[in-house]
Amino acid sequence: MSQVLGDRQTLRRKLHFFYAPIEAQLADVERTLTEEIGSDYPAIDELLKHGFSLGGKRLRPALLLLSGKAVGSVSREHQVLAAVVEMIHTATLVHDDVLDEATLRRYRQTVNARWSNESSVLLGDYLFSHAFYLASTLDTTYGCRVIGRATNIVCEGELRQVSSRGNFDLSEEAYLSIIEAKTGELCACCCQLGAHYAGADAALVAAMARFGRDLGVAFQIADDLLDVLGDEPTTGKSLGTDLEKQKMTLPLIRLLDQVSPAERAELVEVLAGPAARAREVLSEWFARTDALSYAREVAQSLARRGVEELASLARNDATSALEAVAEFVVSRRL
Amino acid sequence: MSQVLGDRQTLRRKLHFFYAPIEAQLADVERTLTEEIGSDYPAIDELLKHGFSLGGKRLRPALLLLSGKAVGSVSREHQVLAAVVEMIHTATLVHDDVLDEATLRRYRQTVNARWSNESSVLLGDYLFSHAFYLASTLDTTYGCRVIGRATNIVCEGELRQVSSRGNFDLSEEAYLSIIEAKTGELCACCCQLGAHYAGADAALVAAMARFGRDLGVAFQIADDLLDVLGDEPTTGKSLGTDLEKQKMTLPLIRLLDQVSPAERAELVEVLAGPAARAREVLSEWFARTDALSYAREVAQSLARRGVEELASLARNDATSALEAVAEFVVSRRL
Repeated sequence: MSQVLGDRQTLRRKLHFFYAPIEAQLADVERTLTEEIGSDYPAIDELLKHGFSLGGKRLRPALLLLSGKAVGSVSREHQVLAAVVEMIHTATLVHDDVLDEATLRRYRQTVNARWSNESSVLLGDYLFSHAFYLASTLDTTYGCRVIGRATNIVCEGELRQVSSRGNFDLSEEAYLSIIEAKTGELCACCCQLGAHYAGADAALVAAMARFGRDLGVAFQIADDLLDVLGDEPTTGKSLGTDLEKQKMTLPLIRLLDQVSPAERAELVEVLAGPAARAREVLSEWFARTDALSYAREVAQSLARRGVEELASLARNDATSALEAVAEFVVSRRL
Repeated sequence: MSQVLGDRQTLRRKLHFFYAPIEAQLADVERTLTEEIGSDYPAIDELLKHGFSLGGKRLRPALLLLSGKAVGSVSREHQVLAAVVEMIHTATLVHDDVLDEATLRRYRQTVNARWSNESSVLLGDYLFSHAFYLASTLDTTYGCRVIGRATNIVCEGELRQVSSRGNFDLSEEAYLSIIEAKTGELCACCCQLGAHYAGADAALVAAMARFGRDLGVAFQIADDLLDVLGDEPTTGKSLGTDLEKQKMTLPLIRLLDQVSPAERAELVEVLAGPAARAREVLSEWFARTDALSYAREVAQSLARRGVEELASLARNDATSALEAVAEFVVSRRL
């Protein structure tokens, strides 16, 4: 437990620059989440609260609030929608853990490991529907519409990813398009909502959405790199699941693009085999090619392109935090 | 295939009285569903279209449209929301089939059987989010709010049902409360939306919601009876899954309430064992107790109570159809 707290504090400290400009509003979001997620039935209440504790960084609520503060000021709508996007994100995490058969997330047992896959599926559905309900308590349908559309694109992206498993011919373009839908879209949605509810005009709302999308894609590439490289004690979640699920990510795509046809055939055979062996063989290949550094550079260049979208804004602590987070997501070790 | 079409036509004929007053509007709903559910990615498009073909009776869209016509007239809002509730219903079916490990629904392979559990989870998420998006295209947040809240109650009901598995002490009251949430709520939501968007006042909207709730609970009891009694060729879906999943339903609850403590202990042991043996033993018990007829009577009395809510309405073809469907759901064999 103290290990968990310790690691959470480390994470929080590392991200302090990011949360500082919106600390009070984030605390309100936290209160909203605690109030909203619960049940009169004790067994269900325990499941909901455990499931929700697996979210964590509050990156998406922070993006939404910071985008509001970067272009204007933060209102009640921002706080409601910040809770909404965190619920949506947690719902996708809970369902991802079923898909990945993961047993560990943020140093805690996943819902599927502690309860069952069935409970995980239903918990995710509960969180999705609660998020949509909460969004519908605002005065207009704008929030519902943007969130409904983004969530739908996220789901389509995930479906495409599942249907691409074991497809070792997946192109870099198709990979980027999938993660843009799967991860980029919800981050774009956060920044779009933040800017819209702070009164930004259509052009600025669109620019903020592009910032969010680039940031999200960069974040996902970095996350995929962690899955190839990282170790569980550091990241606090089940790793190596991409290899086990024969999910192609950027370093692998780059590697296969560069080798000879014979080497490619050999590598594909390894990738189609046991993950432990694949990891061993890959680490040798990664040591003598640019696959890892290439993936890192793609992520960094997307993060830079995203930051350029902020150029027209007057500088304040929120714009600095957004720039800093763009740097953080491509360099993070946690 | 002709077997499938034949059985679909039978079902359609049996329900003709129900669809007749709103036939043109239902055809529009069907067009909306066909237009909305699709993907530019062929593999995803096939999955979406197959998954959606597993819905079928269009009971919920019909309830929504008939409720509108019973109290006033049917508008564009009704048609959009009718498509929305069918998407939500199909999403819960697709996720139910994962939970139940069912392989057959409406004479066709389930998504989890033909693709994978993962695809089923994501397909359900896609349908949920698309439904919420579509609801948000209306002018006000009313539809989103009612549908978001109802869906959330449905999920909580399903979570309670999963957490009650193997609890042979489940009371009749708790069972009814669970199916009221799981099935009654979405039917209540359909009738509420139908009445609201036809301009009914708050009292009438509430009465129509009560009608829908009673109808839904009666329907679920009848469905649970089919699971105990029915055979797959007639119903076109995997059956006996309640027994396999140790899910208590009304006939079992009634049976256990009536027997001696020694018989109860014996029955509980049978219920905790293999489903085939449980089915055999139960059929003997059902033959010499009132368990089945009791469950049927509870369903019928709920359907009657629901119909009483319609008493204040001027009679038209829609009110007659609503009365007839209340009779149908508790007598259906399909």
